[in-house]
Amino acid sequence: MTTTNHQFKLATRPVGAVKRSDFNYTEEALREPAAGEVLIKVLHISLDPAMRGWMDDRPSYMPPVAINEVMRALAVGRVIASNNPGFAVGDHVSGMLGVQEYAYSNGQGINKVDPKLAPLPMFLGTLGMPGLTAYFGLLDIGMPKEGETVVVSGAAGAVGAVVGQIAKIKGCRVVGIAGGKDKCDYLVNELGFDAAIDYKDGNVATALREHAPKGVDIYFDNVGGDILDAVLTNLARDARIVLCGGISQYNNTSPVKGPANYLSMISARATMKGLMVADYYHRAGSALQEMGGWLMAGKLKSREDIVKGIETFPDTFNMLFSGANKGKLVLQVAAE
Amino acid sequence: MTTTNHQFKLATRPVGAVKRSDFNYTEEALREPAAGEVLIKVLHISLDPAMRGWMDDRPSYMPPVAINEVMRALAVGRVIASNNPGFAVGDHVSGMLGVQEYAYSNGQGINKVDPKLAPLPMFLGTLGMPGLTAYFGLLDIGMPKEGETVVVSGAAGAVGAVVGQIAKIKGCRVVGIAGGKDKCDYLVNELGFDAAIDYKDGNVATALREHAPKGVDIYFDNVGGDILDAVLTNLARDARIVLCGGISQYNNTSPVKGPANYLSMISARATMKGLMVADYYHRAGSALQEMGGWLMAGKLKSREDIVKGIETFPDTFNMLFSGANKGKLVLQVAAE
Repeated sequence: MTTTNHQFKLATRPVGAVKRSDFNYTEEALREPAAGEVLIKVLHISLDPAMRGWMDDRPSYMPPVAINEVMRALAVGRVIASNNPGFAVGDHVSGMLGVQEYAYSNGQGINKVDPKLAPLPMFLGTLGMPGLTAYFGLLDIGMPKEGETVVVSGAAGAVGAVVGQIAKIKGCRVVGIAGGKDKCDYLVNELGFDAAIDYKDGNVATALREHAPKGVDIYFDNVGGDILDAVLTNLARDARIVLCGGISQYNNTSPVKGPANYLSMISARATMKGLMVADYYHRAGSALQEMGGWLMAGKLKSREDIVKGIETFPDTFNMLFSGANKGKLVLQVAAE
Repeated sequence: MTTTNHQFKLATRPVGAVKRSDFNYTEEALREPAAGEVLIKVLHISLDPAMRGWMDDRPSYMPPVAINEVMRALAVGRVIASNNPGFAVGDHVSGMLGVQEYAYSNGQGINKVDPKLAPLPMFLGTLGMPGLTAYFGLLDIGMPKEGETVVVSGAAGAVGAVVGQIAKIKGCRVVGIAGGKDKCDYLVNELGFDAAIDYKDGNVATALREHAPKGVDIYFDNVGGDILDAVLTNLARDARIVLCGGISQYNNTSPVKGPANYLSMISARATMKGLMVADYYHRAGSALQEMGGWLMAGKLKSREDIVKGIETFPDTFNMLFSGANKGKLVLQVAAE
């Protein structure tokens, strides 16, 4: 058995984009799992925009990662030693395993996943937290009706791609906003979006008036900033804005750019609502079953962007913010 | 019969606060009402923050006032000549009569009011558009439950004062935000608010943590700007934000200040919804009946700040933005 564990521990609160020096990359000896514990070999780590918020020391929906604590992250792994009757050696599990090669767990907060149903990284994306975020945010908060226009930002990302595809399944006109021609082509040609707007090439508000001529009924916002403001100028009556994230603002060293056009919500009678996927976890089973069915039927496509090597963590994480990743960004720690 | 009518016509699009020179004060001869028309002597003109938006040439819920058009305004008046079988000389009516001494109407969009039920200016405030805005915004969008904490800005204004009092009737803890000690004393001592925060004296966010220690369940926003941002830092779980107006931003010559703290709506699972009172006019009858009952029972108090003289219009209108008015601001054109 391997006897050492490498871990990324938060060394300091990052200012702006994370740097290698914001973390200590440490090595510690493994021990046998204590009574009730399992020892998990981490295979794939999920890199999510929300992690940036967890590094900041401010009130939020969960406490910040403490200094010298292993960086919090969702991951999938394989049980390699067990003192817990609920888990056997060889079981695959997902949970908050952290940015490290091995994790201990008392079994709470980890769930078995079946690698025969889907490739393991997909349990971090379409069949994991991002997929559930898309599913419940769009269906429960957005409440799409056939024929409505749905706009999603970060559309080629882990959440956005699923939002757009489910909106298509529900009979909506779907416009994705993403950065770069490659991503936009992917949305239209591979995922079946009706249109895609490259925010790096031209004016988003102008393009929205072209591609959403009747106004935006549902906007699923992953990015905030100027793109949110552009959508706010083109809302349909009774529009719903699903407030999922604001990745354009997470690395800010100046104050967050609030949506200057928010007063347009008055004449549009628009609703904006904050989304926390954890509120819906009690319904995850039926959601995953439905999404699994769509995957099997080819109505839902999933793409993962897998980068190898835990030691690349800070740089790989920053791909989320430059938009370099294509699909769900996963850090592969070990193959099996 | 008087033979001339003085009118304030929009001369140019104001930049920032309105100036006298943004209007032409004109005189024209009166004529007999045409077939189907009534001629109304305007008695009291309602001065509302929304009027500032109507002066700007940008898409909104109603077309802007045209250059050389009489400035649009709600008002109450008395029919002095009628060629319309629905209205008799002596009837009192309310409607969009404009900033002028006399108005013609074909009868559409004007409603009779009964001066025996309440003083005429009250039909422009608590028993008019502002009162209905408060009633439907709080009850339909805010959905207050007994024991919840309701915060309202512009709390001593025509809408805010009614919001807070209805929230008290519904058993809520009510915190008003207003400018100056006089207004704050009025809210607590006269209207029965639980607390008032003087935004001109100290930090609103700090005061909110003191007066809304369990967080804000409902925020009724009339002002936007820094006060909205302060409230966003202190939301309770599942908070509702009634987006009624943003008076702090209406005279801006620079872009509107969007709420920089809007992302806190995610962890609070908060909802923000735009309010247009016109959507509820079909239910005005029962609302006014209920509010009339509260007025009679002394549970609802109404205050009007009446300034005499149509010629003072631009300066009097600006009182709304400096916060100089105490209660519903009304411009008295004639006593009867």
